[in-house]
Amino acid sequence: MPDATTQKIILDCDPGHDDAVALLLAHGNPTIELLAVTTVVGNQTLPKVTRNALAVARIAGITGVPFAAGADRPLLREIEVAPEIHGESGLDGPMLPEPSSELDERHAVDLIIDTVMAHEPGTVTIVPTAGLTNIALAVRKEPRIVERVKQVVLMGGGVHVGNWSPVAEFNIVIDPEAADIVFRAGWDVVMVGLDLTHQALATPEVAARIAAVGTGPAAFVGELLEFFGKAYEDAQGFDAPPVHDPCAVAYVIDPTIVRAVKMPIAIETTGTHTLGMTVADLRGPAPEDCRTSAAMELDHERFWDLVVDALERIGETPDTGWTPRAAAETIADIDSDTVGTPVTPEA
Amino acid sequence: MPDATTQKIILDCDPGHDDAVALLLAHGNPTIELLAVTTVVGNQTLPKVTRNALAVARIAGITGVPFAAGADRPLLREIEVAPEIHGESGLDGPMLPEPSSELDERHAVDLIIDTVMAHEPGTVTIVPTAGLTNIALAVRKEPRIVERVKQVVLMGGGVHVGNWSPVAEFNIVIDPEAADIVFRAGWDVVMVGLDLTHQALATPEVAARIAAVGTGPAAFVGELLEFFGKAYEDAQGFDAPPVHDPCAVAYVIDPTIVRAVKMPIAIETTGTHTLGMTVADLRGPAPEDCRTSAAMELDHERFWDLVVDALERIGETPDTGWTPRAAAETIADIDSDTVGTPVTPEA
Amino acid sequence: MPDATTQKIILDCDPGHDDAVALLLAHGNPTIELLAVTTVVGNQTLPKVTRNALAVARIAGITGVPFAAGADRPLLREIEVAPEIHGESGLDGPMLPEPSSELDERHAVDLIIDTVMAHEPGTVTIVPTAGLTNIALAVRKEPRIVERVKQVVLMGGGVHVGNWSPVAEFNIVIDPEAADIVFRAGWDVVMVGLDLTHQALATPEVAARIAAVGTGPAAFVGELLEFFGKAYEDAQGFDAPPVHDPCAVAYVIDPTIVRAVKMPIAIETTGTHTLGMTVADLRGPAPEDCRTSAAMELDHERFWDLVVDALERIGETPDTGWTPRAAAETIADIDSDTVGTPVTPEA
Amino acid sequence: MPDATTQKIILDCDPGHDDAVALLLAHGNPTIELLAVTTVVGNQTLPKVTRNALAVARIAGITGVPFAAGADRPLLREIEVAPEIHGESGLDGPMLPEPSSELDERHAVDLIIDTVMAHEPGTVTIVPTAGLTNIALAVRKEPRIVERVKQVVLMGGGVHVGNWSPVAEFNIVIDPEAADIVFRAGWDVVMVGLDLTHQALATPEVAARIAAVGTGPAAFVGELLEFFGKAYEDAQGFDAPPVHDPCAVAYVIDPTIVRAVKMPIAIETTGTHTLGMTVADLRGPAPEDCRTSAAMELDHERFWDLVVDALERIGETPDTGWTPRAAAETIADIDSDTVGTPVTPEA
Repeated sequence: MPDATTQKIILDCDPGHDDAVALLLAHGNPTIELLAVTTVVGNQTLPKVTRNALAVARIAGITGVPFAAGADRPLLREIEVAPEIHGESGLDGPMLPEPSSELDERHAVDLIIDTVMAHEPGTVTIVPTAGLTNIALAVRKEPRIVERVKQVVLMGGGVHVGNWSPVAEFNIVIDPEAADIVFRAGWDVVMVGLDLTHQALATPEVAARIAAVGTGPAAFVGELLEFFGKAYEDAQGFDAPPVHDPCAVAYVIDPTIVRAVKMPIAIETTGTHTLGMTVADLRGPAPEDCRTSAAMELDHERFWDLVVDALERIGETPDTGWTPRAAAETIADIDSDTVGTPVTPEA
Repeated sequence: MPDATTQKIILDCDPGHDDAVALLLAHGNPTIELLAVTTVVGNQTLPKVTRNALAVARIAGITGVPFAAGADRPLLREIEVAPEIHGESGLDGPMLPEPSSELDERHAVDLIIDTVMAHEPGTVTIVPTAGLTNIALAVRKEPRIVERVKQVVLMGGGVHVGNWSPVAEFNIVIDPEAADIVFRAGWDVVMVGLDLTHQALATPEVAARIAAVGTGPAAFVGELLEFFGKAYEDAQGFDAPPVHDPCAVAYVIDPTIVRAVKMPIAIETTGTHTLGMTVADLRGPAPEDCRTSAAMELDHERFWDLVVDALERIGETPDTGWTPRAAAETIADIDSDTVGTPVTPEA
Repeated sequence: MPDATTQKIILDCDPGHDDAVALLLAHGNPTIELLAVTTVVGNQTLPKVTRNALAVARIAGITGVPFAAGADRPLLREIEVAPEIHGESGLDGPMLPEPSSELDERHAVDLIIDTVMAHEPGTVTIVPTAGLTNIALAVRKEPRIVERVKQVVLMGGGVHVGNWSPVAEFNIVIDPEAADIVFRAGWDVVMVGLDLTHQALATPEVAARIAAVGTGPAAFVGELLEFFGKAYEDAQGFDAPPVHDPCAVAYVIDPTIVRAVKMPIAIETTGTHTLGMTVADLRGPAPEDCRTSAAMELDHERFWDLVVDALERIGETPDTGWTPRAAAETIADIDSDTVGTPVTPEA
Repeated sequence: MPDATTQKIILDCDPGHDDAVALLLAHGNPTIELLAVTTVVGNQTLPKVTRNALAVARIAGITGVPFAAGADRPLLREIEVAPEIHGESGLDGPMLPEPSSELDERHAVDLIIDTVMAHEPGTVTIVPTAGLTNIALAVRKEPRIVERVKQVVLMGGGVHVGNWSPVAEFNIVIDPEAADIVFRAGWDVVMVGLDLTHQALATPEVAARIAAVGTGPAAFVGELLEFFGKAYEDAQGFDAPPVHDPCAVAYVIDPTIVRAVKMPIAIETTGTHTLGMTVADLRGPAPEDCRTSAAMELDHERFWDLVVDALERIGETPDTGWTPRAAAETIADIDSDTVGTPVTPEA
């Protein structure tokens, strides 16, 4: 039961391996009250990431939380997805169950707006872990959400590092105009970017801790991280995969796990070599009215404590529809079609 | 009663003197079935143009048609309004009555989407006579409207003339990214631009024909054109004002009044001197799959016939709440506060 | 001998079929004193166009005029040449003789600067019929030329038509930054663009008049126009080729052959669809201090009179090194290697 | 006398306090053979920085080295100077003597080209410590210098820090197109940027070492650093001024004083928030054919050893025309007009 310290969040995501971990963390952590989950094109197409979100919800035993699908393309740019990191399904690695729940019939943009407007001012935090198309559309459709939300804590950007280009990060660069709208909207934005998330590595020790939880959902996370680690090694030369998205959720749970620094941040939308860059001004102290900050340092130990703790609290879930691969490999009649096969949800 | 030749339209506008005439034409012409009226920031701020739309509805006796307010700012750019053409109220000149009807409680974007999706495919024409923010947001929120509408007939742009810059027209340049979305969406777009609308001059002969109708609504149009003519003379050196927006409605009523030419048209969103230009390729015949065309020549006589005819059909309206200035000036207790005073509608 | 009405010009070119005609016109017309000829990458690479310029000089019997090679690439952009219009040699069609003269040892930029500075202020007209790289570099290296030249009469641009893109002309779009420098330098610029040059068609009647001159140089022009006409028909659907470059020379000879209109003109250097556009502001009369004008109408008859007259004055030239194709085809030992083979000049 | 290890350099500068120190270091250090000094608009206008260069030459006793003035404005952008750092004269602080030598009559661009072409391939290093306009013009006028120079070691840029904007450094941002030309030319470029030069602080200890040299030129440097320190404190909050330009010369003298890292570097010329940024790609090891590197770490002690050593070697100079302020203040008839007053040299 939520108490005074509970943090109400809307998770806007594109699962995505690290989005899945973020969802599990948000669900399992007792500080978080998950009000809604919305999806948006990003790591894969909208139908794929939406299906993935529902599949993760089943595995995690999330019920009673509305899920809604949102934008199927960026505001102005062409769709760019990341199969080299997340596979063709967007959640390659484990076998995914059929979703057991239905999408909310509202558009993600309306679910976000309705949720924010239905709660007290200053109580709802939006946590985007994907491109910012949904959030930007919500701001333009209902500008009053800007002063009503508590803050936006997003995974994206970097100071001044990049992964999708020398100085741009994927979530920002796939829809830089949406990011520009979100960063200039006038609310508090905490940018949890590559500076931080490249510290959130799922090392073998971390994998061992997760495996030791011994539950189905933990085994699922183990399989996700196995694929994710291999993909990051191949694509970007990482020894252990950076698990970006749960960092944003962790910041909401306990801001002391992260060192965030106030700084002006602008989104570059016209650069030839810098499109989608989150341009921070570090030349002096941030001005008084600065509403943006960047997460710069992570307490690695306490971060993974939160994730493991969430998995332990989730425990076993009754109807995951999911079979760990180790077990599955001994089952003759496994339906291989469920591996990484998107089911088109109602869009 | 609508018959087979009736054209169902959604009018998306920012009244605006010529928007008001467009609304009267759409209401009075028997070919047009006006399904919905939506407003968007443009000639003035959203509250002002929305109030103006409702005031015109009262004067014209429009009932049973939903009106909804939409975007209060462009997608990415700062708000730019046109007081030098439309005055501080957006509809300066005549005294405006208080609106007698309420806005639909939906957002304009949802009213557009709902209206398109509620009618048979290929039957609804969207007629934007303002910046394209609402239409772009609708396309991004519900992409299925693109193949469902019949066509988009918009007032805006030019080949290659401008009014707000050497080569850009106001409705396009105030939200060029929205225009880019609309022109590239994949539906049929008829651009009724300055090439055409600078032929739709409200000459003294035209003014005389309108005055001769002898009704309240016609007198209202007369006062609008008086102010509009003065503003265009002062701001752009016109002898008689170009009455842009009804040209788009006239094209829907009778495309033979206009010579439209198929040509590829792209929106410039990054130019230093060309921002918001509608770039047409006239170097050869349009390719087979070209979905854009530009209106190049107007039958001036038949165009104004349509407007006068619409005013005659509207006749006197029962509850305009409006007093012609000539009469008003003899009334001692006239409430001068209603002149050009915006009433904030529910946004 | 030059008298008071003689026009001193520097021809900066990239021959190019129409450049060749411009060079012949400048040489043959008694009003023009040709001070220098400079070459620049454009229709073909610098070595090719430079060789072509020297070959044309030999055919035309031009002696005592310094020729110098200039920029081998645009200021910022990659090289773009036009083989579809001018062939692989830049002057395909006739067989070209070996040049019989040497290049001036100066760089074109220095030849331009030295020539301007060596003559009285207000006496030298620069006539660029190519990309504006040389002229821009000269302006930046010696800014004093700006107030010293009489005017710049250039072939390039259009209002608002294009050939290399919907709204950009080749000479401007291949080096838009150079064009920006030239148009903003502060001197008088007469833009002889596509509006005019698409009126300078070499119709069959024109070809017949040129053939009737009956000299070697005239036969050479005939062969040039034959290839050029075919190329323009194939590439851009013209019935007869627009012979652009001599229009600029003709304007210098007799401005009354052309209707030029003063108008502000800016060069678009950042547009997505409009890069290299010459953006003219036609919304009202040009301001007093406007230094740019555009040639809009050509007296086709008098223009071709000038060209034919120049060819007649040139007459036969003693040492062309050139054999008309009709004759050549009967000569067994013709050295086919001279057809369209560039000879690298000293760069 | 130069031996095998002598480094021949051309110093292209805009003195400028730190340029002056760079010039003194280049003159006093025995490893450096100073072939030519060229000036360009930057810290101040071309006449001012050219006069300053000649004044420093007199104080330092530099003779027999050609000095030439170059570009008086950037390629495309408007002139931007830095009086808040360098004062109105470009070298505020000490009283400056009248120059005692004449400029070379060549343009800086030609002096650079002639000097490079006159020496053996691979022997000349260009050291720009200003905007890159001269170097870019030289590359475009004589492309053969690119493969002929040994390397370009320039002061400018940063990874990814800025001083003139959040991510742009002054020398690059004042002419980003010139920088783009230089960085993409195909020669070896060592970028000595803010990463390094913000380590080259003239601390009180450094000032004391310089004062201890006890000569006129050292006193002159002391006065320069006093003004410079105050300016940097006021404008950018530095405790001690970063003495940028001699770092580039120091790298040429002894590359082991600096840790330089190979990395692809591109110049941003179209960004809204990133114009003039030197965009480095640090996502992995530089490719084999990478020709750009950035200086990242400075040996502060050995760097200042070099500067002090150079001042000691310069010793007293015979005809400085210069009076230390301490002395000057006791002289009644001092000509105060020489303080910070530019004398226009032949441009």
